[in-house]
Amino acid sequence: MKQELQIIGFDNSGKGTEPFYSFNPATQINNGYSFLNATNDEINQAVAKAASAFQVYRKKSGMEKTAFLTAIAEGILTTGDELVTVCCDETGLPPARIEGERMRTVNQLKMFAALLTEGSWVDARIDTAIPDRAPVPKPDLRFMQIPLGPVVVFGASNFPLAFSVAGGDTASALAAGCPVVVKAHPAHPATSAIIGKIIQTAAQNTNMPDGVFSLLFDNGIEAGVRLVKHPLIKAVAFTGSYKAGKALYDAAVSRPEPIPMYAEMGSTNPVFVLPQVMKLRGAEIAAGYAAAVTLGIGQFCTNPGIMVYQNNDEDFKLSLQLAFEKTSGGVMLTPNILSAYNSNLQKHLAIPGVEHFASSSLKTVDATNNAVPVLLSAESSVFNSESILSEEIFGPASMVIPVATKKDMLDIAENLSGHLTATVHGTEEELIEYKELLDILEQKAGRVIINGFPTGVEVCSAMVHGGPFPATTDSKTTSVGTKAIDRFTRPVCYQNMPQSLLPAELKNENSLHISRLINGERTNKNIG
Amino acid sequence: MKQELQIIGFDNSGKGTEPFYSFNPATQINNGYSFLNATNDEINQAVAKAASAFQVYRKKSGMEKTAFLTAIAEGILTTGDELVTVCCDETGLPPARIEGERMRTVNQLKMFAALLTEGSWVDARIDTAIPDRAPVPKPDLRFMQIPLGPVVVFGASNFPLAFSVAGGDTASALAAGCPVVVKAHPAHPATSAIIGKIIQTAAQNTNMPDGVFSLLFDNGIEAGVRLVKHPLIKAVAFTGSYKAGKALYDAAVSRPEPIPMYAEMGSTNPVFVLPQVMKLRGAEIAAGYAAAVTLGIGQFCTNPGIMVYQNNDEDFKLSLQLAFEKTSGGVMLTPNILSAYNSNLQKHLAIPGVEHFASSSLKTVDATNNAVPVLLSAESSVFNSESILSEEIFGPASMVIPVATKKDMLDIAENLSGHLTATVHGTEEELIEYKELLDILEQKAGRVIINGFPTGVEVCSAMVHGGPFPATTDSKTTSVGTKAIDRFTRPVCYQNMPQSLLPAELKNENSLHISRLINGERTNKNIG
Repeated sequence: MKQELQIIGFDNSGKGTEPFYSFNPATQINNGYSFLNATNDEINQAVAKAASAFQVYRKKSGMEKTAFLTAIAEGILTTGDELVTVCCDETGLPPARIEGERMRTVNQLKMFAALLTEGSWVDARIDTAIPDRAPVPKPDLRFMQIPLGPVVVFGASNFPLAFSVAGGDTASALAAGCPVVVKAHPAHPATSAIIGKIIQTAAQNTNMPDGVFSLLFDNGIEAGVRLVKHPLIKAVAFTGSYKAGKALYDAAVSRPEPIPMYAEMGSTNPVFVLPQVMKLRGAEIAAGYAAAVTLGIGQFCTNPGIMVYQNNDEDFKLSLQLAFEKTSGGVMLTPNILSAYNSNLQKHLAIPGVEHFASSSLKTVDATNNAVPVLLSAESSVFNSESILSEEIFGPASMVIPVATKKDMLDIAENLSGHLTATVHGTEEELIEYKELLDILEQKAGRVIINGFPTGVEVCSAMVHGGPFPATTDSKTTSVGTKAIDRFTRPVCYQNMPQSLLPAELKNENSLHISRLINGERTNKNIG
Repeated sequence: MKQELQIIGFDNSGKGTEPFYSFNPATQINNGYSFLNATNDEINQAVAKAASAFQVYRKKSGMEKTAFLTAIAEGILTTGDELVTVCCDETGLPPARIEGERMRTVNQLKMFAALLTEGSWVDARIDTAIPDRAPVPKPDLRFMQIPLGPVVVFGASNFPLAFSVAGGDTASALAAGCPVVVKAHPAHPATSAIIGKIIQTAAQNTNMPDGVFSLLFDNGIEAGVRLVKHPLIKAVAFTGSYKAGKALYDAAVSRPEPIPMYAEMGSTNPVFVLPQVMKLRGAEIAAGYAAAVTLGIGQFCTNPGIMVYQNNDEDFKLSLQLAFEKTSGGVMLTPNILSAYNSNLQKHLAIPGVEHFASSSLKTVDATNNAVPVLLSAESSVFNSESILSEEIFGPASMVIPVATKKDMLDIAENLSGHLTATVHGTEEELIEYKELLDILEQKAGRVIINGFPTGVEVCSAMVHGGPFPATTDSKTTSVGTKAIDRFTRPVCYQNMPQSLLPAELKNENSLHISRLINGERTNKNIG
């Protein structure tokens, strides 16, 4: 049994007395790694170090932070196959998926490194003085985004790399100039330890301050809540369930000093299929939908959980059934997640009017903790009257809702709560005819997808992986893409600050060659 | 007695049964205007109309919204002297101040109109498709800011025009595309009614939807709380006291659907005076400080409430005393504000070690509800050990804190909570020597001012009128300047949306000629 320790800045610590272990979810075999729940002292040490490191780290240049993020990316890229093996053992996910997720994680870090190297993300704004303005002189005012302070990041169960220790939340917080204390997800602690050590080494090798990164383990909720409530913590990022996310949000906003808490809590990601396109491409859409529902054993935040289609076309129904029967089940991330999946399915099926529509006929017989993909169906009247049917079933389940008219479809859309995504399949002609549907959906979701599926979340400047509550606790943000950095900054304005004391981003000489708004004009030029 | 009505979109309503009146705070004479507390029905009607108007208003082009904001500005500019007379009668503020505030209000509206005309504020980002990318094609992704929905704005007591019915909060929310329901401040209801009618007329004249603007009156807190809790309200903006702002924040974040609540709750705006500059310009700084403390009878959010100076220089003390004795008191906004001012002063003076340092010797003898400017002093040990001394006394009072060493000064700075502003007076040489002080202060305030005073809040792109809690409930925002518009928007991403269905801001052809981030490059060009 290998004993893994808390990572507290450049130190390691093992003061806890309550051990827990890394398990294989399929076999329930202990993977040979032991962890300790972080003690209050360890939590306080990690946060105190983060606060102290902040005073140094916040002044690091874009190029210095680029070096740090790049070193983390390189470390993850070159750490070898152990990462994949350990991660597969802990999560039940297949190696190809973990390899893909590793590249995604590396690319996220590199994206933020590139953003820092370019430098314009600070949103520099300069209004120069007008000393002879009447009735009062106009002062010199210079504005930029600065980091908030130490950030707590919660690792997510469903993306052990891309939304965990070195995932998008950590990458964007570090890019912003905020030290990060990660609470590892107990479903993949050994993976978390590997990545944590890579970040610790990268911080040392690139001359970052002790405390810029810490990684704490806890098998329960206590360490997480304590971190969120710690007065030196200035923001929180989380990906996970509504229940956990909302509880942490409530803790964050009821602190003596409330702090921003960015919880991405998933959604059912509704898909609407319009009548013309169903006739033209029904089988293709059915196959795409079945694949999207079951991708990653339905454990993505963006798997679609509802499909609404107009015209009760028998061919389309048959295509859906056939496509769903061909899907594979698979090992879920933890026994608890599987049991919640099965019990949520039963709750939905127990509602009068909810029918079993199709199931996977391909079951992986040699694995335990295996989820079977299931497609349910319900009339829109049933769906509209039972609010529980709008709640996400985390796993490879979905519900199809045939509707008779455009109005029925609009009614369902109108009654949706907030979602990460909303998708419409339609010919261009009928999309124009259903413009009203699109107008509704853009008010319900962070991303509106046409003729595709929501499960791919591109890492780029234009991505929004967010959306209105209850998909997230802050619809104004995204947890994927470059905009994610804004979660960890606030603007500051310097009035009549001497050139020698201004940050490089705001001096007259634009030595960083960034894009700035100077007296209302966007330019890369120097002043004067 | 003139009976004023609730403004509910294009209608007026007077269903309430509890009347209240506009009073002159100096004379307690009734100004001849009667108001009714808004009923629950009226509140619900205003919000329902706002929600319905949102579906039309959110689609208005930048030019259409520009016409609306410009019509409001023109209406305020041309409404004649009645506005000034009524406003002075209600607030006790002098005509020159109200004329100045009228121009500020007009300029704020025009600033947002110009921002909309230019159009780049939507932060358009486009990542074009790469259909042949391996292993999966890259979709076309287009991102922009869209409005949140109906917004509640609370009029502020201390700026009856610039932070009230047509103030910065309303201007920025309307600019963002959000209908606004204003809760008028009961200290200046007649002024609010005049401005409300101007906005109502402007909305009709520029073809805005019924419900884009409503104005409700209430002499208590019930209507405000009800508005904040209304499920169709999507954001709140407030300027006022910590107590009221924090209570509304708690209401907003504990709704079933939490919403952003932007409360600007004032602060003590500390001023630090370094030793060299005190020798060189002590008398000038003392005079400037006395003027800043007492400007607007100390009823600005940005009046300085603490001055920390190093070296217990007798000349500087004398200058401060002389300057403060020359200040004038004046009529406060309401009898309650005056009585809170006096009782807070007494609370501070009751603390052992707090001394009376100077008072205005010029009292306006013919006015009641008159505040007398008072300067207190305390040793840093007293200030550090009595947390109540860090709390704002709303009104023309301030405290000077002499310190012996740089370290004492840094300790006080380090212990500050969040403030709207922080000011340092120093020669350029000693500012460099005290760089550590500036580093601390930029983490404590939204705006750092060098060799000036915080009371002027310029309306421009680079302004931050905000700051860490408890100065505001959201340090990531500002309530003055163009950045204020971001409070009322969220990003949405369109994936593979046909050109014909994209908003003008995101089509390949950049018909609005706005600045866009296209595949990482900032450009005003078309695509293709």
